Amino acid sequence: MRKLFQEDLQNLGEQLIEISSLVSTAMDRAYVSFESADVQLAEEVIAADTQIDRLQVELDEKAIDLLALQGPVASDLRMIVGALRMSTSLERMGDLARHIAQLVRLRYPDQVAPAQLRPTYEKMAEHSFAVADRVTKLLKTRGMDLVQEIAALNEQINELHAGIFTVIATEGWDASAATTADCVLTSRFFERFGDHGVAVAKKVEYLVTGEWDSRYSE
Amino acid sequence: MRKLFQEDLQNLGEQLIEISSLVSTAMDRAYVSFESADVQLAEEVIAADTQIDRLQVELDEKAIDLLALQGPVASDLRMIVGALRMSTSLERMGDLARHIAQLVRLRYPDQVAPAQLRPTYEKMAEHSFAVADRVTKLLKTRGMDLVQEIAALNEQINELHAGIFTVIATEGWDASAATTADCVLTSRFFERFGDHGVAVAKKVEYLVTGEWDSRYSE
Repeated sequence: MRKLFQEDLQNLGEQLIEISSLVSTAMDRAYVSFESADVQLAEEVIAADTQIDRLQVELDEKAIDLLALQGPVASDLRMIVGALRMSTSLERMGDLARHIAQLVRLRYPDQVAPAQLRPTYEKMAEHSFAVADRVTKLLKTRGMDLVQEIAALNEQINELHAGIFTVIATEGWDASAATTADCVLTSRFFERFGDHGVAVAKKVEYLVTGEWDSRYSE
Repeated sequence: MRKLFQEDLQNLGEQLIEISSLVSTAMDRAYVSFESADVQLAEEVIAADTQIDRLQVELDEKAIDLLALQGPVASDLRMIVGALRMSTSLERMGDLARHIAQLVRLRYPDQVAPAQLRPTYEKMAEHSFAVADRVTKLLKTRGMDLVQEIAALNEQINELHAGIFTVIATEGWDASAATTADCVLTSRFFERFGDHGVAVAKKVEYLVTGEWDSRYSE
């Protein structure tokens, strides 16, 4: 019984890794569709998000079954509740990648962003993908150095996010208001993606070290 | 023991009601600060959000203690896990009210939004407040008619959100790009607030009826 329970816990961890891996793929492909105005790829990203949603529901049901059948306590309990929380953040990260793809679809055949901002979005996308990639590694290895790395990547995303607003507020910005709106939303989607990545990382850290930094939540 | 546990469950429900009530107050005051460019009130809304955050952490710790000490099953277990999820959504609704107040502070002494859009934001704020108010009532009474009412209010918020983008994209829109950016974010904050309200309502519905509509998540 006890051995089976440990296997169940491990399966839960593996499902989180699977979802996190799908999220990093979603962000990678969402950005490729964004930079190349590839509506076909955008459609694929949008369609693939249902798989993330489905896996989250499955994981949550399994976690609740484990709570019901095993009555876990202490670290096992925290791990299961943590998995429920992390799956919520990961699912939301999938949504945010989908939102970027939806903007690509909405503006096709035009580009969502003007040339001037594309290098900034490229960096935001690189860092966002790196956040999801490091989250997957963290879930696999529990290497605590990754937590700081994820927080640092998120800081860089936040700075790029602020930079977008600075550009939009300058005299030289001559894009249409609709494009301005798209640019603000795109930036916000990356920024929230990074926040959720940090939230997952902080939960893993808490599960491993027992130390909770209340500055971080999703 | 059993009686005490039922009391604990009831306390958990009461804490959700308390948080939800603070969230509706936060949204009400955030909007008053927004429409009157009242930076003092905005500061109060921002400061008050820490109370919501603190109550959420307390509720979550209590919920985890109940899981550990009581090993609940069936509907009690679902109720506790549901409370964990609802507290996350409610905390996020508090953040969104705070974000509106932060925009007020950022732009003070100017108004965040130009006169042209203010009637739309007024309606969004009214509906958002109504969402939070009905969520509080729903948590108190479990009256299932409120679930549909909340979903309908959210639909109206979504339509107003779309309307903001329509106005921004028209020829007559002559606000600065920075103002356009603020208007997009403000609208997005209301829209997300409504979504989270629906997520809470759907969780209450699930706990009461056992029927889950997978179209709704946070």
